[in-house]
Amino acid sequence: MFGHFVRNFALCYNHVMLVSDIGEFGLIEKISRLIQKTSDKRMESWQNLTVGIGDDAAVWKSPKSLQTATTDVLVEKVHFDLSHIDWPDLGWKAMAVNLSDIAAMGAIPHYALVSLSLPGYHSVQDIMSMYKGMIKICNLYHTSIVGGNISSADNISINITLIGTCPYQPMTRSSAKPGQLIAITGYPGLAAAGMTVLHEKPQIPARHANFLIRSLNQPQPLINEGLVLALTGVKTAIDISDGLIADLTHICKASNLNAIVHTNLLPVHPILKNYFKQDYVKLLLGGGEDYGLIFTAEGELIDKIRDQLKIRVTIIGEIIESTATKKGVVTVLDETGKPLPEEITGWNHYRH
Amino acid sequence: MFGHFVRNFALCYNHVMLVSDIGEFGLIEKISRLIQKTSDKRMESWQNLTVGIGDDAAVWKSPKSLQTATTDVLVEKVHFDLSHIDWPDLGWKAMAVNLSDIAAMGAIPHYALVSLSLPGYHSVQDIMSMYKGMIKICNLYHTSIVGGNISSADNISINITLIGTCPYQPMTRSSAKPGQLIAITGYPGLAAAGMTVLHEKPQIPARHANFLIRSLNQPQPLINEGLVLALTGVKTAIDISDGLIADLTHICKASNLNAIVHTNLLPVHPILKNYFKQDYVKLLLGGGEDYGLIFTAEGELIDKIRDQLKIRVTIIGEIIESTATKKGVVTVLDETGKPLPEEITGWNHYRH
Repeated sequence: MFGHFVRNFALCYNHVMLVSDIGEFGLIEKISRLIQKTSDKRMESWQNLTVGIGDDAAVWKSPKSLQTATTDVLVEKVHFDLSHIDWPDLGWKAMAVNLSDIAAMGAIPHYALVSLSLPGYHSVQDIMSMYKGMIKICNLYHTSIVGGNISSADNISINITLIGTCPYQPMTRSSAKPGQLIAITGYPGLAAAGMTVLHEKPQIPARHANFLIRSLNQPQPLINEGLVLALTGVKTAIDISDGLIADLTHICKASNLNAIVHTNLLPVHPILKNYFKQDYVKLLLGGGEDYGLIFTAEGELIDKIRDQLKIRVTIIGEIIESTATKKGVVTVLDETGKPLPEEITGWNHYRH
Repeated sequence: MFGHFVRNFALCYNHVMLVSDIGEFGLIEKISRLIQKTSDKRMESWQNLTVGIGDDAAVWKSPKSLQTATTDVLVEKVHFDLSHIDWPDLGWKAMAVNLSDIAAMGAIPHYALVSLSLPGYHSVQDIMSMYKGMIKICNLYHTSIVGGNISSADNISINITLIGTCPYQPMTRSSAKPGQLIAITGYPGLAAAGMTVLHEKPQIPARHANFLIRSLNQPQPLINEGLVLALTGVKTAIDISDGLIADLTHICKASNLNAIVHTNLLPVHPILKNYFKQDYVKLLLGGGEDYGLIFTAEGELIDKIRDQLKIRVTIIGEIIESTATKKGVVTVLDETGKPLPEEITGWNHYRH
């Protein structure tokens, strides 16, 4: 309460609200509201829009299908450091993070546009290696790179747009229902542990260290898994890019509901448990860039999906009604049923 | 010949070819070849592709229509300087340069994804002003902003992807024919003159100076004009983003032909003639960012188009066969029929 007052006072005093004051998500919310308010609603394009700003991808009706498109960027020194990732992996990852957004919609990717900004001092061979990484993952997921542009800049920035189709009803963030269970794929926290390995060089056997770094640098987008979810009837999903709790919070906010997560249900990878004894809950809940999927559904549906998927599916909690004072909030309960402190949150580009 | 040797020698000596050695267009060519060579041609997405890398936009067949997509970026300190453009104009221009690529295909824009990277110290109000500029031009051209993302970065970078449809056969760069005339819309060079006004502050009446700056900061994409061209049967077009000669060279290279441009045919705007006596030919031929259209067609077709368009259409030269030694080259002849020196070329991000 007092914190709130101090903050308001600071804003009055400065007169100017900065992007860093409201962060990435605050800015997206404001932009989304502005576009809602001032776009011409009579436009055919607006009328055909099924899913707009605020989800993993946009979706609109075209004569014979549902089209989808998403865009995401990797910026040097913000999202990656060339001393921690090689060029083919950088290309792979830039494409993978976009493919993952398509996966979270339950959609099929088709076309990629790659907009690359970079300083002229890089070698052509390195840039070609990066594109080879992109093409490799594109071939795996039947996606063609069909355009883009090259521009000069002080730092590398790889901006990719993916365009695809939704064969089933697209999964969104805003469709969760109270009483649904929350399930996740795979083992969150491995990518964050990989980041820790690169930065803090803890004592870990090389093969485990390499596995963690690979989790960070070569994420596997779950296109087929997303399609299975959508086909089976899952309506709500998101990929874990910002962090398990941060991304689950996106679902809660968009659905205007709350969620409970139980730490004793979390799937803890043995390497995490063995080598990150102090930190593994934090890595698991707060660390992003895993690109697994979070989805909500009834227990029966989740059982069905578990039978169809080769990767691990774990129920970690449930969706509950929001209250007068709490809306869009994820509460994490420890083994004794006590809420964990709120410091375990997701990555925010302007707050960290 | 000797120059060629020296260059090869330098490459051998350094062992490493840099991006700055081959420039933006050289890099695009290499990437395009790599994608051609290593993409899986059996993919449905590849099979449906009608126009790939190397044109203003990509085009592919979807069940009921031809889809098109393009992406372009404005990078702070490379493409713009905040002391020379206000926020609404910056938003307008970032969208306009993409709309212009759609116009050059003879297509209709529908959806925009905006990927914004920026430092956190900018005010939220400024960023909202920028989006207002984007939304304003989007409403004019019936385009909805449906997604994007926000990321932190040292400099502002506005990356937009536009998705649309082609109601007629899309106009490409590679379809020019020998004997066709070359026509352009409007008055090239005004944007470059605007840039000169901002940087060199020459003695020009304020209303003319403002007109030139507006030409630079508020380009008008020629969506309707592009549609008229495509409907009337024009097969070859490009928008003037890099510069009249640079962009005409793109057509010549893609079509494997040469072109002749006659300076005495060029449409010279009176302000250019009056206030840029020394430079106006250079501004007109080399200056980019005008976002008019260059197209090639038979004379009769051009006459038809002239009747339908409200903006000026000028024939400035002709497409000719390439020769054994000259392929994809534009020759500019002065009033006496003498070729102008080759220094009057287009903008290249890594060469300047």
